[in-house]
Parts: sequence; C-alpha cells; structure tokens
Amino acid sequence: MSTASRSRFTRSIASAVLLALLIGAPAPAPAAAAPAPVAAPAASAPFTAAQLEAARSLRERCLVDDTGYETLRSLTREVGPRSAGSPGDARAVAWALAKLRELGLKNVHAEPVTVPHWIRGTCSVDVVAPWPQPLAAVALGGSVATPDAGIEAEIVPVTNLDELAKIDSTRIAGKIVFYTGRMARAADGSGYGRAVTVRGRGAAEAAKRGALGVIIRSVGTDRNRLAHTGGMRPEAGDIQIPALAISNPDADLLEDQLASGQPVRLRMRNTSSWADSARSANVVGEIPGRERPREVVVLGAHLDSWDLGQGAHDDGAGVAIMSAAAKLIGEAPQKPRRTVRVVLFANEEFGLSGARTYARDHGAEAEAANHVFGMESDLGAFAPVGLHARVPADRLPAVRAMQDLLAPLGVEYRGNDASGDADVGQIAALGVPVMDLDTDATEYFDYHHTANDTFDKVDPALVRRNVACYAVLAWLAADYAPGFGRMPKGR
Amino acid sequence: MSTASRSRFTRSIASAVLLALLIGAPAPAPAAAAPAPVAAPAASAPFTAAQLEAARSLRERCLVDDTGYETLRSLTREVGPRSAGSPGDARAVAWALAKLRELGLKNVHAEPVTVPHWIRGTCSVDVVAPWPQPLAAVALGGSVATPDAGIEAEIVPVTNLDELAKIDSTRIAGKIVFYTGRMARAADGSGYGRAVTVRGRGAAEAAKRGALGVIIRSVGTDRNRLAHTGGMRPEAGDIQIPALAISNPDADLLEDQLASGQPVRLRMRNTSSWADSARSANVVGEIPGRERPREVVVLGAHLDSWDLGQGAHDDGAGVAIMSAAAKLIGEAPQKPRRTVRVVLFANEEFGLSGARTYARDHGAEAEAANHVFGMESDLGAFAPVGLHARVPADRLPAVRAMQDLLAPLGVEYRGNDASGDADVGQIAALGVPVMDLDTDATEYFDYHHTANDTFDKVDPALVRRNVACYAVLAWLAADYAPGFGRMPKGR
Repeated sequence: MSTASRSRFTRSIASAVLLALLIGAPAPAPAAAAPAPVAAPAASAPFTAAQLEAARSLRERCLVDDTGYETLRSLTREVGPRSAGSPGDARAVAWALAKLRELGLKNVHAEPVTVPHWIRGTCSVDVVAPWPQPLAAVALGGSVATPDAGIEAEIVPVTNLDELAKIDSTRIAGKIVFYTGRMARAADGSGYGRAVTVRGRGAAEAAKRGALGVIIRSVGTDRNRLAHTGGMRPEAGDIQIPALAISNPDADLLEDQLASGQPVRLRMRNTSSWADSARSANVVGEIPGRERPREVVVLGAHLDSWDLGQGAHDDGAGVAIMSAAAKLIGEAPQKPRRTVRVVLFANEEFGLSGARTYARDHGAEAEAANHVFGMESDLGAFAPVGLHARVPADRLPAVRAMQDLLAPLGVEYRGNDASGDADVGQIAALGVPVMDLDTDATEYFDYHHTANDTFDKVDPALVRRNVACYAVLAWLAADYAPGFGRMPKGR
Repeated sequence: MSTASRSRFTRSIASAVLLALLIGAPAPAPAAAAPAPVAAPAASAPFTAAQLEAARSLRERCLVDDTGYETLRSLTREVGPRSAGSPGDARAVAWALAKLRELGLKNVHAEPVTVPHWIRGTCSVDVVAPWPQPLAAVALGGSVATPDAGIEAEIVPVTNLDELAKIDSTRIAGKIVFYTGRMARAADGSGYGRAVTVRGRGAAEAAKRGALGVIIRSVGTDRNRLAHTGGMRPEAGDIQIPALAISNPDADLLEDQLASGQPVRLRMRNTSSWADSARSANVVGEIPGRERPREVVVLGAHLDSWDLGQGAHDDGAGVAIMSAAAKLIGEAPQKPRRTVRVVLFANEEFGLSGARTYARDHGAEAEAANHVFGMESDLGAFAPVGLHARVPADRLPAVRAMQDLLAPLGVEYRGNDASGDADVGQIAALGVPVMDLDTDATEYFDYHHTANDTFDKVDPALVRRNVACYAVLAWLAADYAPGFGRMPKGR
C-alpha cells in the first residue's frame, strides 16, 4: 500500500481536511455525504435462498483451505522483493502468470505497463556532533543521491508540514530538516494518513525553504531499528533534495541529543539513482461467468513490493488472497453469472502506473460499463473487521445481505463511503461501484515498507478468513441479478 | 553478555552435560553438589534489626530514584556502540570516569587493559539458486573476511554440532554449512546455552571437515530481520573460515527453499579484519567502607558492547544499575563497614580481557583475600526474579535474610549454585563468594547482540527495581560483620 492516491486512511472527514490543510489541496467532499437514497429498497430480498446458500458453502470451504497461504509462501520464497522495474518485478510477472494458470484461472495474460525504475543504492546517516553515532536509515523511494562526500549540516527539528510552514525560512536554509512526528498506532490505521504527509511532501516543502536534505522519523508504529521506506509525492517544479527515513529508536536518539540544547549535526549519504523507464505488466486471470461473461467483477491487488522485505503483507497477501478467492470460486458447484477477474497490478508503490494503465486501456465507455464491481486487498493479511461500500443507495440492501454472511467472521458494516483503495480506486473513478474490506491494521504499520515484511509475519488462519470474505463478496456481486448500477465518475 | 566463559545459562546439570557433549569438554560438577554444611547456622540472626532497617530504607529510596535510568540514557546517548578497541570504547572509558565522579564515587580511576580489536566491515549473503534473494546477515565477532569476490557454494543444513559430527565429511567439504537450530524462548534464558554452541564452535568444527564458510541461524528469539552477532570461541589450531549469522526470518526462508528438494546455493561476502591490539581500561570507583575500607564488595558490569546497537541491555543496563546502586549506598545515612567497589570491565564480549586483567592485577593472595564478595549485572534491565549464592553453607542464613528483603520485589531464593557470571566469575575463581541475581530473560534474547539493543527497549521501573536489589545486597554484604569466608578456588 502506498499513498500515491487518496486511500482509505484519508477517508474520514477529519483526516481528509487535515490532509488538505497540510498539503494545500482542496478538501475532498466526503462520499458519505453523497445524495440521499432516491429509491426505497426493493421489497423482495436481494438474493435468493439458493444464492445465499451457495455463498455460505463457499465461505466454509475457504475457511479450511490454505491455497492463499501457500500462494503467499510461493511468492515470498520464489520471488521475494519485486520493486517496479527490478529483476524481481520481471520474475514476479512470470510467477504470477504461472501461478494463476496453476490455480485454474482462465484467460491468464499480461498487459504491458511502463513503470519508473528507481534503484536504491546505499545510504548512511551519522551524528557528527555533539555525540557521534551511526543511525539506521533508508532512502525514501525516489530520493536523489547526495554528493559523494555526503551532506553535513545542522538539523532543524519540525513536527510536520504545518509547523514547517510557520518557521522562518532563514532557519531552514542550509540545514537538514528533521521531521519528528510519530505515527499513532490504531486499529483503523488512521495514524498513517496523518503521519505520511511528511513522507510525501516533506522533502519538497523543505527544499523550497533552502534545506539541503531531509530526515524523517519512519512512518511506522514499531520500535525496531528498521526504517520504513515509501514513495514521495513529487509535483512539477519540485526542487529535489535527498530524503531519508530513520527508525523510531534513532529518531528518539536524535530528539534526546537535541534535548541537551546543543546543536546536532548530521552527515547523510545516499547513492540511489533513476534508471530508464522499464517494462512491467498487470497480470490478469479470470473465472468466466456462466451467463454474462463479458461483465466483470474485479478483484485487485498489487504485484510489486518495496525492495527491503519480501512484500508479504504489502501486498503479497492481497495477491495470494485474491488469487485463492478466484480459485475457490472456480471450484464452486455453481459459477456466478458474471466473470470474476483477478488483476494483479504493476507498480502501485511508485505512482499507480499499473492501475492507471488498466483504467486507460479498459476505460472506453462500453468496456468500462462492463466493469460492474471492484474490490482490492491491500491492507495485509489481518483480521477483516469492517465493510464499506460505494454503491447507489438503493443497492444497500444487497450490501447488507452480503455483510450478513461475513458477520460470523467479525465483519461489521461501516457505511457507503468506500474508495476502492489505491489501484481499484482508478476503476472506481470510471463510475464502477466498489467495496473496501477493512482489516484490523493495529500491527500492519509495524512491518509496512520495511525489511520485516516477510512471510513469517503472516498468520494462515487470517489469510483463510480474508479469502473467505472476498470469495463470498465476489461470488454474490458477480451473481447479483440486478447488478450494482453506476456511481458518479471521478474520485 | 557473551559466552566466552561458562555462564549462568549452562548452570543446570542438564544443560551443562548437553554442552559438554556438544563441545567435547568434561561436564563441570554442579556447584550445588558441593560439600554438605559443616557448621550449623548461628543461633543468632545474621543481621541486626538496625542493619535490616537500613537496607529496607535504602531499598525504598532506590525504588523512587531514576539515577540508573538516566545514567543509561547518558551512556546510550553520548557514547552508543563501544566494542573493544573502537573509538566508542575509548569514549566509554572517558564517559565512565566522568560519570562515576559525578555520582559521588571515590578513588575513581582507570586500570589499563589490552584488548583485541576486530573491525566489522560489510557483509552480504545472497541466495543464488534456486530462487535468488538477499538475506539479512551480520558477521560473527572475529570472523575472517571472504575473498573479495565472496564465496559461492551449495549449503548443507545441519541442526547443531552434534548432527555435524555424524555427517560424512565428504558432504561438507567445499560447501557452506548452514546451522539451522533455533533458540527456544524461556524465562530462565536456558535456550541460550543450548543454541550458542554453534556460534562458538560452529565455524571451527565445519572448517575441520573442509567447509568453506558457515551461516548460522541467529542465536535469538525474535523474528526481526536483524541478525544477532556474538563472539566465537577460538582454540589453538583452528582453521579460520568466514562465519555469518542470518536473521530468523532469513533462516526460515532458506529452510523453505531447501524443502523444495533443490540444491540451494549461496554467495557470502565479508570484509571484516583484525587490527592490532588496543588499549582500553577497567573503570573503577568506590564507596569507601566506614570501618574496613580495604575489604571490598565488587559490583561488576561490562563497559564494552557489541557494535550493532547501543549496548543498552547488554550491558549498559548493568553499568547503570551498579553505578546507581553505589551512588545510593554512598548517600545512605550509614555507609556499610566495607567498601563497595564498582568495576566496569573492559571487553567482556571478545574474551573477558578486562576481567582476566583485573583478576591478575588484584589476584595476589593478600589482595584477593580483601575481595570479600562479588556480584555482576549482565542480563539486562528486566524483572529480578531469583537469587543464587555461592557461599559457605554456614553463611546461607545471611543469604536468606538478604533475599527476604528482596521478596517483596519478586525475588525468590534459587540455591547455592551461583557462578559470578562472566566477569565476576574471574574473581569468584579466586575463592571469592558471589551471588547471581536472575532477571526474567524472556525478552532479553530478542535484543541481545543486535542493532535493536537500544535505550527505548528499557523500562525505567525495572531499572529501579534492579538498582534496589543490588543496593540492598551490596549494603548488607559489605556490612555483614562475620563476612562470607572463602570458597574453593577455580571455576
């Protein structure tokens, strides 16, 4: 998961407004405040007893099947890190084509995507004064290199972009800005939206004020000496300066040294670079519908990962969960009316080029209209806890009937305010109804974008539960006779 | 804490015998089986009511004083990593001299110690086949370098030294041995003694059989991608080959690749080197006794640390706890009869040269006899849970009276089988009675010898509790009129 686009973590009004204030963008109108229902729910139940029984049976089957977990084992063992444009990315595409075929999906193919290719080098951050000490650091994705000798300067601590904006620029010029804000742990992941703004725009905003480089406290909730990388959000005209993240314990140390009242000087070095754009691909596979095969329900996840770990939770879990859900739908006694299409998107982390390419290539009016529903798994293999929809109000009874089947798994209904998340959000922007399945994100940001995002952190029981949820939702959405209609275009 | 010497983790008969089997050494006779009591306990109580009240009052004072925690903050903030012979080691000596003086200790001075100086370079381990992937690795302390191009070979998995001994050497020759044994988590730290044998002797034993290098699963209980370093136990005539540790998740990955049945090939690189011996020092400071100042109770901890973290639990905690205990004894209304001497030993991790030098320089008969008691803190700032003594049996009533005062803090009596631990064990070998205070080691080996051994992992309340325990024990031991007599020499 990245924040290249507005994600579920900026869904709430409070955080969306905060984000807007921080980055100077207009606050998006919350989807929840959309038009009131124009049609009363149909008097008849949205699903037949046979449909509900088929979905219930599928759910039970998924809860005892480890296809998802074993698919994730395979991806992390046989591919591992797979950042956009890297050799691992190419191996991931080949792996996905073979795996979807092995799982029995049809029409398995790759759709070419051009991706940016940033190459991490090595980096270091050392306190030079008052008390020398090396810090654990990683470059943020897209950071430029320092000069060979590095950059040495005094640091200026600021909490966040809001505080930066209030400081006299003469205090920033020639310095290294140190963003100290700490991400709060929360089951709904809400700390992320607030904290991540400095990762996205911290370097650019500091550069405008003459900073030589920036150091951010990792956007993460753990206290390991493993810094969190992640993409920046470049804009035209940005001055580029090196931007590194340090781990939470290292940020604590810097704050402790600053608390002595003495100036703190750092030396930062970084050798990352940009290569030419590279070829990657969205990998697509389907369980064809039995009646209306041209109409598709999209199950999305992203195939790329950050380079530091194995991309187990982010987003190998989504890849495995959606692939397994499709496989188990394909093995069900009755396939749904419409097609279930798994789309494993290229390059979510560096600007959504896979999802944007998909939306472009499939976005012509007629084909877009055949995209009847979408969902994405990109919040790790944690316990599913909440369901958001974004559907016409008169379809909410169908949503509630779907959620009823997930209630025994601990999933509550949370409102008609889904985003489609980063990748499927690009399809939602075409007017396609979507759902978001929240997981308990309490631990997700301990591992997110770090070397620690590895297979051993994944609980097979929670993978099964996620597979069961998406399989039930996808089967019912694809079999729902009236369909979900359309939503307004745009995000 | 290292395992350069037999430590508390090999105290139990079972593990001592196991260790002996594994490394081919004779099993040490357990101290608990030492001579039966020759004298009945004195009919009178070992301590006066006034003594017990003074100790109780000191305990309460320690429980509300953060000198220990703030001393540890100072050491980790102002010195940080301090492996033997490094610039950090020299800074640590200077820091300790200033800090002990600041805390009001007397006779503060440095006693020169010659230490080995191993310099960590960079290292890498990459799976070459069947599925390429980089692993998180660190060199074991003392490892030799690889050739510049690295070593590439197939790996041979073995659980431990016992299994290695049973394998046909032709299967080892020309390969990289991968030790797969996993350390068990336990409150008494007993998993360490069993697991650490491969760190000590794994490279040497594999080299005898023609291995090119070794990789060990980290001796640690966490699942972070932070490998655990630690010293090897070289012996004369060893053939030296590169020895690296990989993190637990990386060891899992290798085992998973091996489970495919395909040969697994690694490339390992390492650039560490040995420099000339360096000068370091034991740092000593005292609270002089009010009646018999030449008789000393030693409070030991080691000033050096591994280079990867800040040496917060290992053994900054011990340095801080013992220094604070002495400071608070010095501030007590009544100083004890004998001197309380803090000794911050140089270079525990690379072969105990500080403790050996101390025992040599202070080991002449008359001076050794003035060392009346010893204790060491080198198991992290965790909850104190158990007390072991090594005293003549007729002094056990005094030990039990001392433990009575710690019972409210959760400390139980565990037997007359203490070792003195690594450093003070060298003094115990002179015949000096000692105590060991066990802490709950459940979490200790999550951090031990890793980059994660940093100040943020330390709980100030547990530092206070440790300070209270050692202050009470040291005050009573130093004030105990009859003294603790002598124990047999040797270990």
